[in-house]
Amino acid sequence: MTLLTLLTDFGTQDGYVGVMKGVIHGVAPGASIVDLSHAVPPQDVFQGAVLLGRHFTYFPPETVFVCVVDPGVGTARRAIAAQCGPYRFVGPDNGLLTPMLLWARGRGETLRIVEASNPQYHLPRVSAVFHGRDIFAPVGAHLAAGVPLEALGPVVDDPVLLDFPQAERTPEGWRAQVIQIDRFGNLATNLERHALRGETVSRVRCKGRAIPFVSTFAEGQPGSLVALWDSADLLSISLVNGDAARSLDARVGDEILVQTRPL
Amino acid sequence: MTLLTLLTDFGTQDGYVGVMKGVIHGVAPGASIVDLSHAVPPQDVFQGAVLLGRHFTYFPPETVFVCVVDPGVGTARRAIAAQCGPYRFVGPDNGLLTPMLLWARGRGETLRIVEASNPQYHLPRVSAVFHGRDIFAPVGAHLAAGVPLEALGPVVDDPVLLDFPQAERTPEGWRAQVIQIDRFGNLATNLERHALRGETVSRVRCKGRAIPFVSTFAEGQPGSLVALWDSADLLSISLVNGDAARSLDARVGDEILVQTRPL
Amino acid sequence: MTLLTLLTDFGTQDGYVGVMKGVIHGVAPGASIVDLSHAVPPQDVFQGAVLLGRHFTYFPPETVFVCVVDPGVGTARRAIAAQCGPYRFVGPDNGLLTPMLLWARGRGETLRIVEASNPQYHLPRVSAVFHGRDIFAPVGAHLAAGVPLEALGPVVDDPVLLDFPQAERTPEGWRAQVIQIDRFGNLATNLERHALRGETVSRVRCKGRAIPFVSTFAEGQPGSLVALWDSADLLSISLVNGDAARSLDARVGDEILVQTRPL
Repeated sequence: MTLLTLLTDFGTQDGYVGVMKGVIHGVAPGASIVDLSHAVPPQDVFQGAVLLGRHFTYFPPETVFVCVVDPGVGTARRAIAAQCGPYRFVGPDNGLLTPMLLWARGRGETLRIVEASNPQYHLPRVSAVFHGRDIFAPVGAHLAAGVPLEALGPVVDDPVLLDFPQAERTPEGWRAQVIQIDRFGNLATNLERHALRGETVSRVRCKGRAIPFVSTFAEGQPGSLVALWDSADLLSISLVNGDAARSLDARVGDEILVQTRPL
Repeated sequence: MTLLTLLTDFGTQDGYVGVMKGVIHGVAPGASIVDLSHAVPPQDVFQGAVLLGRHFTYFPPETVFVCVVDPGVGTARRAIAAQCGPYRFVGPDNGLLTPMLLWARGRGETLRIVEASNPQYHLPRVSAVFHGRDIFAPVGAHLAAGVPLEALGPVVDDPVLLDFPQAERTPEGWRAQVIQIDRFGNLATNLERHALRGETVSRVRCKGRAIPFVSTFAEGQPGSLVALWDSADLLSISLVNGDAARSLDARVGDEILVQTRPL
Repeated sequence: MTLLTLLTDFGTQDGYVGVMKGVIHGVAPGASIVDLSHAVPPQDVFQGAVLLGRHFTYFPPETVFVCVVDPGVGTARRAIAAQCGPYRFVGPDNGLLTPMLLWARGRGETLRIVEASNPQYHLPRVSAVFHGRDIFAPVGAHLAAGVPLEALGPVVDDPVLLDFPQAERTPEGWRAQVIQIDRFGNLATNLERHALRGETVSRVRCKGRAIPFVSTFAEGQPGSLVALWDSADLLSISLVNGDAARSLDARVGDEILVQTRPL
């Protein structure tokens, strides 16, 4: 039995996630299920995509990710399932899977996408409002139990892709954007470590503040702002033992300027 | 090994749910455990019952639900265990299991209830304040591990039942009440789809607003109020891609009026 | 496969806990994993230690606890693993494991501590900021999968121990401190039941209020303050069916005075 991992914007209070797991256990008894997050801001497809993109490569091969941030439930938007390298994903075709699709394409990994339209793998009665329970959970469970991707429905070659903001190289340095803020108030940006071939960060400006670049929190004084590569190798801004987002009154979309120098 | 599903008002921050799972694994190593919700408002037996009633039929047969919303812990209230059709439930005898008991009775399903008083299936030392850990978790785990219901204690034929508010047919239409508000601000009412034999909803009034009836969110404009059958086939009021409860300043208990017309 | 139990201050919204579980399943496929809490206040090692100390003895023997409240990540602080009686713990060497180390030492249980420095049991690439994913999760998973403690690294004989505040016997009675406040607003103190050999509590004062001592909530009127032994046998103050912390405006560190009399 392979691992199922769930990401939704359902929260955990109303039982929506619990009932998805009940459905999964009905299809795949004894399945191992991991919650990645259920606190994606309601209907924020972009934040769901960022969160998935940050973590998925740390899961074991064959993991089936069931991903539901679905403002278009009940519309004509398709349900899709994808094989991206060794990982499988199930979710609405609204851009939520963008980072994984681009990852597979960019690395020449296996990339196969189908529409999960075969009703044999849905619940017998599908509601108009809760495809997480009625479609995505049982489809994911059938995949985990061994059903091949192609059995789920016809091939999709035009998945919806989100237009992610990209860090840009300018004469004054890299212009990047805050793309995620975590519980600790760390600001993750879209500047990836591997983009700085042969260079290193010298100085970062954010919200009018000059922020020193460090390699670990330990190099900064408690209470001081630092910039560093985070656990996903994104340039991030943190307040040592504090909350950078609150201190800077920062929001997703805020711009930072990154100066570099040769290594 | 059958599935255990937990519902409590304990929250997840203090470790009370975690320690129940530790006890369960001590009795039934390797058990599969699903969290239905631990965010029932503290000691709100009614909300716990509504949440259970909404979801339980989607779980696999034989699932053991361990349910703890227990303002009377340490009083003479009984601990009970029930077989309701193919499902098993363990919890305090305070009405929390009402929807499942009525469901089984109404459909002519198996319905057996016992007092879970046999100390052989409790922890060796039972505290006065935490029966979730000391009684309900081990009793549920023993059930999941194969102990028959009747071994837990004597038959109960007078379980406490909550007096649920019922939607009422009046000359002006159905009068229903909001019984649950979820994370998205959707208002679920006690008007069930099957009550409208041969009729359909034409118009809904709530908090002085006339609200159109639709069959999916997609029929409403983003930002507009709609009424529709929710995923439990309850009439509900939603704001498309928004929060109806906030928009209407609605609360559990608020009344709605539902006009119907022949199909 | 033995049980893994996780305690962190990561929250569950950002996927940090989920990705730790992904790593665990990569090392120990099909592992049973229980969340004890992920809502320890950020970087509050003391609250993490109190929470662990309250619950760990209810878990099955051999349980591996992976504990991460780690303000010093990226500094020279060691990662340690400990055998405390039948339980195993993995975490930063910052005092987080104090209650379990003292418990084992005080009872003459097995107590062995090593530095978890052997890179063979870490992820191949260890970040400077997320040892929960890169060190603690894989080390815990290897322990659960059968790797002996001694394989993880050299013996540690000087673990960091927190200086816990102790309840003190004075001529006027016991002076104790509030050490934990839970979701229900119950105030747990550091006065342990076994400290009162041959005596019982007669009266409790807290925040200027005289509070009667009871043996169960049922002895108090709804809305009244009571003192009682909680589920960890700590003297605690509760508001029957209410929130004592809010009612008393109480905080961790507040003092209570406990008068006793012979049994």
